[in-house]
Amino acid sequence: MFSGIYARGGTAAAVSGQAWLQAMLDSEAALARACAREGLIPSGAAEAIAAACVAERFDLEAIGRGAADHATPVVPLVRALRERVGSEFAEQVHLGATSQDILDTAAMLVSSRALGVMLDDARAAARAAARLAEEHRATVMSGRTLLQQALPTSFGLRAAGWLVGIHEAIVHLEDVRQHQLAVQMGGPVGVRSPAIAAGVAAELRLAEPVVPWDTIRVRVAMLAGAVGTLTGVLAKLARDVTLLAQNEVGEVREGGGGDRGASTAMAHKRNQVAAVSVIACARRVPGLVATILSSMEQEHERAAGAWQAEWGTLSDLLALAGSTASWGRELLEHLEVDVDRMRENLGRLAAAGVAEAADPDSHLGASSELIDRALTAAGP
Amino acid sequence: MFSGIYARGGTAAAVSGQAWLQAMLDSEAALARACAREGLIPSGAAEAIAAACVAERFDLEAIGRGAADHATPVVPLVRALRERVGSEFAEQVHLGATSQDILDTAAMLVSSRALGVMLDDARAAARAAARLAEEHRATVMSGRTLLQQALPTSFGLRAAGWLVGIHEAIVHLEDVRQHQLAVQMGGPVGVRSPAIAAGVAAELRLAEPVVPWDTIRVRVAMLAGAVGTLTGVLAKLARDVTLLAQNEVGEVREGGGGDRGASTAMAHKRNQVAAVSVIACARRVPGLVATILSSMEQEHERAAGAWQAEWGTLSDLLALAGSTASWGRELLEHLEVDVDRMRENLGRLAAAGVAEAADPDSHLGASSELIDRALTAAGP
Amino acid sequence: MFSGIYARGGTAAAVSGQAWLQAMLDSEAALARACAREGLIPSGAAEAIAAACVAERFDLEAIGRGAADHATPVVPLVRALRERVGSEFAEQVHLGATSQDILDTAAMLVSSRALGVMLDDARAAARAAARLAEEHRATVMSGRTLLQQALPTSFGLRAAGWLVGIHEAIVHLEDVRQHQLAVQMGGPVGVRSPAIAAGVAAELRLAEPVVPWDTIRVRVAMLAGAVGTLTGVLAKLARDVTLLAQNEVGEVREGGGGDRGASTAMAHKRNQVAAVSVIACARRVPGLVATILSSMEQEHERAAGAWQAEWGTLSDLLALAGSTASWGRELLEHLEVDVDRMRENLGRLAAAGVAEAADPDSHLGASSELIDRALTAAGP
Amino acid sequence: MFSGIYARGGTAAAVSGQAWLQAMLDSEAALARACAREGLIPSGAAEAIAAACVAERFDLEAIGRGAADHATPVVPLVRALRERVGSEFAEQVHLGATSQDILDTAAMLVSSRALGVMLDDARAAARAAARLAEEHRATVMSGRTLLQQALPTSFGLRAAGWLVGIHEAIVHLEDVRQHQLAVQMGGPVGVRSPAIAAGVAAELRLAEPVVPWDTIRVRVAMLAGAVGTLTGVLAKLARDVTLLAQNEVGEVREGGGGDRGASTAMAHKRNQVAAVSVIACARRVPGLVATILSSMEQEHERAAGAWQAEWGTLSDLLALAGSTASWGRELLEHLEVDVDRMRENLGRLAAAGVAEAADPDSHLGASSELIDRALTAAGP
Repeated sequence: MFSGIYARGGTAAAVSGQAWLQAMLDSEAALARACAREGLIPSGAAEAIAAACVAERFDLEAIGRGAADHATPVVPLVRALRERVGSEFAEQVHLGATSQDILDTAAMLVSSRALGVMLDDARAAARAAARLAEEHRATVMSGRTLLQQALPTSFGLRAAGWLVGIHEAIVHLEDVRQHQLAVQMGGPVGVRSPAIAAGVAAELRLAEPVVPWDTIRVRVAMLAGAVGTLTGVLAKLARDVTLLAQNEVGEVREGGGGDRGASTAMAHKRNQVAAVSVIACARRVPGLVATILSSMEQEHERAAGAWQAEWGTLSDLLALAGSTASWGRELLEHLEVDVDRMRENLGRLAAAGVAEAADPDSHLGASSELIDRALTAAGP
Repeated sequence: MFSGIYARGGTAAAVSGQAWLQAMLDSEAALARACAREGLIPSGAAEAIAAACVAERFDLEAIGRGAADHATPVVPLVRALRERVGSEFAEQVHLGATSQDILDTAAMLVSSRALGVMLDDARAAARAAARLAEEHRATVMSGRTLLQQALPTSFGLRAAGWLVGIHEAIVHLEDVRQHQLAVQMGGPVGVRSPAIAAGVAAELRLAEPVVPWDTIRVRVAMLAGAVGTLTGVLAKLARDVTLLAQNEVGEVREGGGGDRGASTAMAHKRNQVAAVSVIACARRVPGLVATILSSMEQEHERAAGAWQAEWGTLSDLLALAGSTASWGRELLEHLEVDVDRMRENLGRLAAAGVAEAADPDSHLGASSELIDRALTAAGP
Repeated sequence: MFSGIYARGGTAAAVSGQAWLQAMLDSEAALARACAREGLIPSGAAEAIAAACVAERFDLEAIGRGAADHATPVVPLVRALRERVGSEFAEQVHLGATSQDILDTAAMLVSSRALGVMLDDARAAARAAARLAEEHRATVMSGRTLLQQALPTSFGLRAAGWLVGIHEAIVHLEDVRQHQLAVQMGGPVGVRSPAIAAGVAAELRLAEPVVPWDTIRVRVAMLAGAVGTLTGVLAKLARDVTLLAQNEVGEVREGGGGDRGASTAMAHKRNQVAAVSVIACARRVPGLVATILSSMEQEHERAAGAWQAEWGTLSDLLALAGSTASWGRELLEHLEVDVDRMRENLGRLAAAGVAEAADPDSHLGASSELIDRALTAAGP
Repeated sequence: MFSGIYARGGTAAAVSGQAWLQAMLDSEAALARACAREGLIPSGAAEAIAAACVAERFDLEAIGRGAADHATPVVPLVRALRERVGSEFAEQVHLGATSQDILDTAAMLVSSRALGVMLDDARAAARAAARLAEEHRATVMSGRTLLQQALPTSFGLRAAGWLVGIHEAIVHLEDVRQHQLAVQMGGPVGVRSPAIAAGVAAELRLAEPVVPWDTIRVRVAMLAGAVGTLTGVLAKLARDVTLLAQNEVGEVREGGGGDRGASTAMAHKRNQVAAVSVIACARRVPGLVATILSSMEQEHERAAGAWQAEWGTLSDLLALAGSTASWGRELLEHLEVDVDRMRENLGRLAAAGVAEAADPDSHLGASSELIDRALTAAGP
């Protein structure tokens, strides 16, 4: 796409064609080593194969084209790998494996790498939210319900809510990363002995599945759900920022230097680029999660369409969620808060005769207690 | 709707208008008791309020109509409850709470109750899958990839895959039920002291949140994702059944007596009613999960639309997922397997010169090892 | 559901179980008359059958339960209708038809009736938007982009945009209603002569299809798309209203008497109930449209799951879209505009040195020309 | 992505970053010429600007990066274009326009070009379906409902159903292409005189809108719905092909030479690559349509997130739908039908005592009449 909005942070690179290619090659290398450990192939063969598994030496375009002839890129990839390895070890390449073994294992590797980047950004976003919560314990502001001023609250508590949400989404996502991203090594119809899967899992530091999961897509669904949850929380806080940054409200604005957010047509305007970009990326996610869930209905030992629909969907999902996390981090790390304007806007409530607004600081005790709970729960 | 397909099992009742009403009343009762424990109201008031909280004594229709005037049913409900409690204790009803406290707490109660029913059915489905896996260790059949016969496998291993999928979805859903279904008691803008929330949580045996989660919808999203995962696994196995039950394949069929599955127009046909119903219910789920995820972008302390969109979506999601689980249980508990036909169909592979098909039993060792792993992992 | 938000206007009734039952009976009656016209059954039989086709005389609950045994309500319905008609004409009931003929024809009837109500509300909403456009030609306000004040525009032009959007959505939906809502009368596998379909179409004033469309769901998809488009436009204007009604902006508010919008916890607040309800209903629609589109992949002559998933989805889609339209009408018919506040808020732009804001009326010529185009295009 | 499955046919190129860049430049060129025609800039300036609007001369990467600083690629593009045009005419570039004018007009151009390719493939698919319908008028086969053999039908009639579905989807899509793809030229807040829009529309052969449609996304929604409908029909027929091509059914198979469909692990297998690819692409579409519909809720004169979410979604939608159409064409143009096997499979029905199956040709009259209707309706 022509727009960098969708590709902030490192996940776009982590799910690129090149990244998938390397992940498939890593899977082939791990398979060869696992086979060697089980005595199925000589260890020299395994090392020769592993040495050849470098994405830069393959023609990504040609493999993409070949993929269209076989409904999988693994067929042309294995051919190319065998050629590169040479006739001596060609037979030992891809031993006992099927396309799905390599692709599913690669998908989990790609996901693990993308989550690594995404979680780094999410954790930084959480730290920034924690800092805002801490710094703005005593910053009173108007709570707003259904977009109407309601009663006083504090900006620190608002940020504490963001923090807890991000934190809980991270915990869930880390759990998925650790336990659900498992290798696939069932062979053509899933009956391969689990020893090879165990070996590949150890090699790639992925989880080992109980049984092959060719058409049991629980782990992909859990991954999608967890990723969707994180983006949803980030969208919530970005929405808050766009609303609080309205000229008529003026309680926060995005910082960051340069001419970020300048308009082509209106010199006086500055747009909330990071918040808008969080929302733009995050809004694309729920439809992708639905596609992943719809794709769980897979036939027999390998699906005719639903599985193949997953690859691009998962890539897009990870890229967009990673971009959301990166923008969210940027947004929170540079958010500027107008403490005076927050107090000033409360005046409208006081003028409406709302007793609580006359003494907005009276809530700060409860608010501060809640902020402490949030900071404790979300850890340092 | 005119069709019982969508309403099998107990979840439809667990999310009915009546069930929501009772859950809202249970939330008011628990709030009153928690307030009494904190010394905010006399315990006599709490007991009088709790005694009045019986759904049958309220006019559900009138509350539904009133809901449309306030964009929440809690306004008319609290009025009706105060009337019923009488002037002595009317002031103590709903003390310090806001509509969202009651509705969100009720949503979690409704979810917990619906999950109870759904998980019972899912566990029974898992047991039935375990039985099939055990019984059919030595039942060879053709593995099929992209809807083409591939290599021999066993029906026991197929069922073991179903079992692991259902089991993993159950574990995730139980975890969500235990840790994510938390009360909401933040008051109008979330600054209420957490003591009341703790009291209500103890009363209702729901989780206690770190801070109020009015517009931080992580727990709803996790619930939706977990429910969607369970239905996806069930759809997978129902799809398998519809395919294996084709006349030309004939390897399984649904049991169950009476005239189930008879056709109006074709006396010779019997339809796979449970499998079709699993798919019909499950296909409606991903779109609902997407709606829940899209609804996470909620403004400030209470959303203007996104929150109100959740109520019906969550109800439908739980009802459909519960119906899916109930049909899935029915399907697995009565599945009839044609062992001879499975072996016979392998003949086609052998005739195509596939060496493995000539000796299909040679795979049964690895298959049996995997079945054992599945049975062990999924517990008794 | 416990909430009247989702069921405003007449579409909820138009898609109720009772309404579906009547539509199925209307389809059976029309079939009988078409058969009589073709000489397949005596006209006395047709009239006896038609006379029996009154929903109130059937047990909706029992048919719903029976539906679960056959994955279709038509099996128990036809049995009950034959009993009611008596042994003399029982054989003539449902002649040559299959369940799908009756259900699909009923679905189109239900849709047509629901669209009738929905389009009435949508047209009234368009008229109200036209009135606002006309009345507020000279009402200057700040245009806002990315939630920031941009340059002056007029409220009349904003309303003209709403008008054109509603109008175009109506035109599309009326086209779908007229041309896409076609009967289904293909018999068990679609080979029935088209004469019967033509007869039934004439009887029910629905369109006649070129060929049976059992598993070719183009018309359902187009219906869903058109309905989704209408709700999307209404959500847009409701979002505008929630934003313009913020205390800090204060440019519009919902009218309507009584205590609508009063809060349980905050006496000073009034919520924008209609706008919130439009958004709540409309947000539930895109996921349902996706389910309808996903359900287009139907097998052979009758689908095993995808078709059965459509019924409830379509009902919910029509009910929610109708409720959206009814709330949208309510919103526009009672919208109160604060002309002074609009001009006052422009002061902020002028203060920021925006030249155009110093003379906001200078744009009114172009604005008025555009309003005229909108009023002309959207007709009287 | 590493897989050519998603990028068959010309739409992937038609929605590439390069294609968007050219479309934005075409919009700037058309704007300059329209301004010249209205006397706002000298025609020499317009021609100088138009001459500079060649995508290859711009740095796509740099513009993509710049887009991330402004939440739009138009800011860096206009800067680069002004530099390229030189100081003499720099002021005349982008005159009176806003980012959204250029991006929305470019989106419509990109859509129009992508639809051109997609419709060519869809029309070829329709012709191939028409040929199959014509050729197989007398090819009896078993109709199948709920995946069970039902009664005899003809393969010609099955193909006629596909034909009518594709044809109706094409008609709808052509209508959208002609009437809904309109330029956007409203200036910063939509109050620009319509003369410029008319000029740009004439220049680009796009439709002219009644009023600017910045946040009224009816045309994007209609486009998405129509595209989703086409892919749904193609998924239906691809699903049929995968089912009919099962070894146990064996009634059709994909043609096409080379080693297409060969398996890495199973030499005896040939996969239905085109059918699988149609399904893989088509399954990704409904979630994208839902995202487009969800994105209709756009604020004021320019949305803060929902609009920016549209760009990538629309690109993906067009690319995947185009790929679906290309695969669908391939599938239908090379489909091989096993007429004998179709008749042979009917034997199972006859053996079950189904009277109609004993004389399957008796239905061919009605079937042929319906095929004629389909061929007539879908034109030559």
